[in-house]
Amino acid sequence: MSDFKLHCFALSGNCYKVALFFALAGIEWDSIFVDYLGGETRTEQWRETVNEQGEAPVLEHGQTKISQSGVILDYLSEVTGRFGAQTAAERRDVMRWILFDNHKFTSYYATLRFIYGLQKSGETPVVEFLRLRAKAAYAVVDEHLTGRAFMVGERLTIADLSLAGYVFMPEDTGIEHSAYPAIAAWKDRISNMPGWRHPYDLMPGPTSV
Amino acid sequence: MSDFKLHCFALSGNCYKVALFFALAGIEWDSIFVDYLGGETRTEQWRETVNEQGEAPVLEHGQTKISQSGVILDYLSEVTGRFGAQTAAERRDVMRWILFDNHKFTSYYATLRFIYGLQKSGETPVVEFLRLRAKAAYAVVDEHLTGRAFMVGERLTIADLSLAGYVFMPEDTGIEHSAYPAIAAWKDRISNMPGWRHPYDLMPGPTSV
Repeated sequence: MSDFKLHCFALSGNCYKVALFFALAGIEWDSIFVDYLGGETRTEQWRETVNEQGEAPVLEHGQTKISQSGVILDYLSEVTGRFGAQTAAERRDVMRWILFDNHKFTSYYATLRFIYGLQKSGETPVVEFLRLRAKAAYAVVDEHLTGRAFMVGERLTIADLSLAGYVFMPEDTGIEHSAYPAIAAWKDRISNMPGWRHPYDLMPGPTSV
Repeated sequence: MSDFKLHCFALSGNCYKVALFFALAGIEWDSIFVDYLGGETRTEQWRETVNEQGEAPVLEHGQTKISQSGVILDYLSEVTGRFGAQTAAERRDVMRWILFDNHKFTSYYATLRFIYGLQKSGETPVVEFLRLRAKAAYAVVDEHLTGRAFMVGERLTIADLSLAGYVFMPEDTGIEHSAYPAIAAWKDRISNMPGWRHPYDLMPGPTSV
């Protein structure tokens, strides 16, 4: 048994952000499967005992229970000394990208991927809305990564891990990824690191809906 | 001239989160008007000189320039000693709600309000999509505020200021606010505080599109 228990499921890129932290840091962890597709996160019981926000991932570490991938990543960087910021200014820069990720980059892309890539909605006004916004967020990150190896400080940080949540997911989103060459190179840089594993190899549960 | 300069505009609840911090803390600040409706945040020049993420607010404090309302609020709580967390656990709790706000609460509501309330889109599939998700986020916050005065630690913190970004905006969103009585009571608690001002009285620029 590891010290770290992560409530997670394979389809969730938000969970992958944390699972990837453990994989790249070479730290043992245990998974607790969340039956998201079966509606577990919407039950009263799950919300009362695991997370009132109704979301995975949730990390348990001793008596500490934490939700929100951005808070979990920040906590893990502190307690393990890995992938964190080195100065106050860098810490703000890391958190700035984690917030941009939650608000725009992961947010629009993950929902587009779920509706279009997994539920196979076909082209709808909502898909068009999400894709336009996901592409705008991709363009901002691609521009930032142009001429840089990683988002902050020229080394892997939790800002990269947050943004990497959904970028390895295999489902079609109707976005042409060749339009974002700096993101493609950054993905290769991450997936070539020792310990890297694909989300569907790292977390439990089904990989289709 | 104040030490603090905030790039902002009246219609932006994300900017209001920071402007409200200054108002309730009784701290002087200067505004720099962002012509969002005129497309200023989409120009190369603005992105290069103010914020590569293309978003307001941006805070300038001496040589420090910070974007993302969540990072700005965290910074201001540190440098002014107001509305911050008192322990590491409380700090995680505050950041957990700021992330939930950016990902779900403000995110869906602000976009719904812009499209439906300001641009007067009428009922569309995108409006229906955003309203459903905004209501789910409102329900989570209403449930959390039931039996509590504020989000964290029974006093006003930057978690409340983040979530309060759009709740005072007057435009119709098609959401029945009487369904969220704990949020209504929390809004009254905030607007009755000394120094409180409405977003349209606090920030420069037009209040319609």
